[in-house]
Amino acid sequence: MAYADTRFLTRRRALSARLAGMRIDEMLVTNLIHVRYLSGFSGSQGALVLSKDLTAEVATDGRYSTQITEEVPDIPVVIERQSALALLRRIEGPRRVGFEADHVTVAQLERLQEACNEDVTLVPVSGAIEDLRLTKDNTERIRLAEVAELASTAFEELLAAGELAVGRSEREIAADLEYRMRRLGAERPSFDTIVASGPNSAKPHHTAGDRIIHRGDIVLIDFGAHARGFNSDMTRTVAMGEADDFTREIYDIVLRAQLAGIEAATPGRHLVDVDAAARSVIEEAGYGEFFVHSTGHGVGLELHERPAASQIAEGTLEEHMSLTIEPGIYVPGRGGVRIEDTVLITQGPARIITPAGKELRVV
Amino acid sequence: MAYADTRFLTRRRALSARLAGMRIDEMLVTNLIHVRYLSGFSGSQGALVLSKDLTAEVATDGRYSTQITEEVPDIPVVIERQSALALLRRIEGPRRVGFEADHVTVAQLERLQEACNEDVTLVPVSGAIEDLRLTKDNTERIRLAEVAELASTAFEELLAAGELAVGRSEREIAADLEYRMRRLGAERPSFDTIVASGPNSAKPHHTAGDRIIHRGDIVLIDFGAHARGFNSDMTRTVAMGEADDFTREIYDIVLRAQLAGIEAATPGRHLVDVDAAARSVIEEAGYGEFFVHSTGHGVGLELHERPAASQIAEGTLEEHMSLTIEPGIYVPGRGGVRIEDTVLITQGPARIITPAGKELRVV
Repeated sequence: MAYADTRFLTRRRALSARLAGMRIDEMLVTNLIHVRYLSGFSGSQGALVLSKDLTAEVATDGRYSTQITEEVPDIPVVIERQSALALLRRIEGPRRVGFEADHVTVAQLERLQEACNEDVTLVPVSGAIEDLRLTKDNTERIRLAEVAELASTAFEELLAAGELAVGRSEREIAADLEYRMRRLGAERPSFDTIVASGPNSAKPHHTAGDRIIHRGDIVLIDFGAHARGFNSDMTRTVAMGEADDFTREIYDIVLRAQLAGIEAATPGRHLVDVDAAARSVIEEAGYGEFFVHSTGHGVGLELHERPAASQIAEGTLEEHMSLTIEPGIYVPGRGGVRIEDTVLITQGPARIITPAGKELRVV
Repeated sequence: MAYADTRFLTRRRALSARLAGMRIDEMLVTNLIHVRYLSGFSGSQGALVLSKDLTAEVATDGRYSTQITEEVPDIPVVIERQSALALLRRIEGPRRVGFEADHVTVAQLERLQEACNEDVTLVPVSGAIEDLRLTKDNTERIRLAEVAELASTAFEELLAAGELAVGRSEREIAADLEYRMRRLGAERPSFDTIVASGPNSAKPHHTAGDRIIHRGDIVLIDFGAHARGFNSDMTRTVAMGEADDFTREIYDIVLRAQLAGIEAATPGRHLVDVDAAARSVIEEAGYGEFFVHSTGHGVGLELHERPAASQIAEGTLEEHMSLTIEPGIYVPGRGGVRIEDTVLITQGPARIITPAGKELRVV
């Protein structure tokens, strides 16, 4: 536990240092992902207050009184049903208290305001904790790599077991893949598994339906696992029995685009350029109009988080950020291919944490 | 589709009628569950505007342009990346526009305000659509019964297949049950499946871990499926190999409490009384202090929704509401039992939609 304490304390110290710059005395944290990030508490109800001088309190209700004591040994615990209100009521004197403007609803803010003691001023704060989460610390990188490896292994097992087969439905294959991830330790899929076969592969937001897979189909599988708070995200596209010239052509283009995107994913590189590195390969091959989404996004405590690699992205990559690289070509009525890895940005080449092979597999 | 149109139109008509009473000219709906409830659109990004005179517009981004046209044949569609802002910008002249104060964040409200044309006033609205959702229409009752039946069947299959067995882990059993639900048509579990064995059964918020199940254990399984927008929720408690006197005693008390709760679940009954009907059985048996939660909650588009049957509940039951009846006894260090059904309130006795048997099963 000593190790865990240090990790959460380090994060609280980083947030605390930011508060002073924003003239915030205390930060009320109500987004549960952020409560967990700053304290380790993983329950489904709770809140945390952190002051600019690094004192903190965490609150939850009676259902979690044992759990929170185990998970958070280094912060005083308050057991109250309405956790955020209880923490706020305990703050007295002239104080500027920040709240998470991107997570607190308009109705919640009204209740928070009613709970404030005299001379307490609520101040909207946007993105302060999200900024900290942009670069992943050592534990986060380990967890991300673990859950990505788990999902990748499940996919390899699915293929080895012959479960991706002609005559089966998209839904059955999604169920089998999710089951394998669960057996390997996932708590749940990180999103509804996409198994898009034949013409469905050209629909970027198809999930998994009753369509039966036929010989000659392209099957696009986009999937992820959630474990210990972290998510994974990857896509592989497979040909069933045979791959025609069209499939081979667009697969080759997307793979080259994906490798170019990965190569561009280095510290200091502008995110627009990472997108352009992948996109230009597809454009030069004449399929630019069929790459209808952005190249990638961060993955961590949330499935989609900053940074974004797109044509309108802002900012540059930094060491220890995570990023998906997921170009695709979707030709309506014919079929689509997407290849997606999640990478961690390092001083050297990006580290791919979703290792399943990317050569065109015909199964 | 003619039938579907009528259902969504009926809901929009009911909301529209409420707007007049609140002096709202247009309601901006941004909660995606409510966009789906009022229009049928099931994508992951979008918004809807409904006026007091029943005109409506629905918006989403380009990824869903085909899907929204198929799902929403009876409302004009706007394709724009920032759907809510786009709909709001189209409203002109002196207008009071309601927004969902329980769902719009403080930061979102700021962006909405910036998008407003002159003479447009944003007005916070709480619970208007949730009020409509309290009683389930015919389609909703069918969907709820279907998904509850699916989950119940998966549980019966799990037992019949011998998958709930000594020597297996909680996690393996959760994975098997979730897999069976998925194969029967669930899109995902409606929450992380709880498999709480032995001493874990006394922890109301245990999920499913690595503990291996032993002969003599109580195993409490709380689970649900999500399909076509709707959730199910049920709990069964099973004894492994043998049931000792303590297990039989608390099982019998909880079952009697649960049956008393169901019997009390009739139209016009105060929700406090439904809770009391179940709770008094447990209290009279001397275990009142070990029933640490409320008796039940509504189930529908959300897993937990109104009404609540608790000691501090407000209001009465009405025909076509849904409600879980889920009393439990949790004795720390010894074990726990919970039995939960979801019921639909009818003019006669409550209709149980989670049919799996409730006699004490020793497997």
